[in-house]
Amino acid sequence: MSNKINSISKPALNRFPDYLNYLNLMKNKGLIQISSTMIAEHLKLNPIKVRKDLELTGAIGKPRSGFLIEELIMKITDLLGYNNSSEAVLVGVGQLGKTLLSYEQFADYGLSIVVAFDKQEALWNTEVKGKKVLPMEKCKDLINRMKIHIGIITVTADDAQEVCDLMVDSGILAIWNFAPVHLTVPEHILVQNENMAASLALLSKRLKERIQ
Amino acid sequence: MSNKINSISKPALNRFPDYLNYLNLMKNKGLIQISSTMIAEHLKLNPIKVRKDLELTGAIGKPRSGFLIEELIMKITDLLGYNNSSEAVLVGVGQLGKTLLSYEQFADYGLSIVVAFDKQEALWNTEVKGKKVLPMEKCKDLINRMKIHIGIITVTADDAQEVCDLMVDSGILAIWNFAPVHLTVPEHILVQNENMAASLALLSKRLKERIQ
Repeated sequence: MSNKINSISKPALNRFPDYLNYLNLMKNKGLIQISSTMIAEHLKLNPIKVRKDLELTGAIGKPRSGFLIEELIMKITDLLGYNNSSEAVLVGVGQLGKTLLSYEQFADYGLSIVVAFDKQEALWNTEVKGKKVLPMEKCKDLINRMKIHIGIITVTADDAQEVCDLMVDSGILAIWNFAPVHLTVPEHILVQNENMAASLALLSKRLKERIQ
Repeated sequence: MSNKINSISKPALNRFPDYLNYLNLMKNKGLIQISSTMIAEHLKLNPIKVRKDLELTGAIGKPRSGFLIEELIMKITDLLGYNNSSEAVLVGVGQLGKTLLSYEQFADYGLSIVVAFDKQEALWNTEVKGKKVLPMEKCKDLINRMKIHIGIITVTADDAQEVCDLMVDSGILAIWNFAPVHLTVPEHILVQNENMAASLALLSKRLKERIQ
């Protein structure tokens, strides 16, 4: 996904959100199909540019009737990575962070941690299993630019809320939290807490019930 | 628990399972109380030795009526660590193994990983957060002697079943399995599989349902 988007010029990329807005508007008005000419007219753009842009999405327009609006919206959303639910970033490259960065089974589910961040300068620009560790300052821009929506928190309890806030601010929508702390997030953010101690405690409890 | 047991002489320690067998027998016959003399007579032991042994359990016998059988059984079981459900061993000191050995939150639940094993010689007698890493050869004897019942498997999928078999053979009753493989165990063994990829996949799925 990010490869595809990298091959598109920046000016073109900037036009896509406008297309998306307009298409959603037309869809809500009940329109089913739309031509690139109509879009170009409305957005006051060169129709050839618009046609070329829309070709990049992979949507196929018919000579007379143009594009199916619903399909075009889906293709643009896909292109922009707005529905990217398979890539994640990780913040906190300690023991646990490194374990997750090295964890090969994510690929079995089509998931990947694409980049990691840490506040420790000594770790900057190092790699863990081919994944770059970058300074926190790069976090917001990169998450935004790569349209990543899953954030993994493997920092200490003390730092977790601050990292969480930064993630939310960067466009993260789902947080996998390993820090032993309750995170406060806006309503639209998904949080999944991973408490390994509780997992072991559960097994211990089941064992206890059996042997006592 | 293991400290307490270490202060007891080996011959004394060997008598406790006999006490336990006899006490369970008497309990099943409906007996409520028993004297150390009666136990000594039945097991053909020196009554003073038996009284001293039973004192070690912390159970309190009354001058005439002796010990409450149920309490004595509980105290001996406790002493022998038969109901030890708070200590665990770990096999496989890779990235994940080290993370778990370093994980401080287990203590919040009264749980601890007391020792680790690995097949790599380079790791033998090293320590991770104060926990010794020992060769696999020591596994069975140590688990047995320390009456540990929880085993954590953090080896590769290839080695997991072999490690599992060794654990079961050593007296492990509950296995926390991080290897991405289905373990075959006897019916009385509890297995809890930890699949971190599935956890992330779940979060990804929830996110997908929301944004698509």
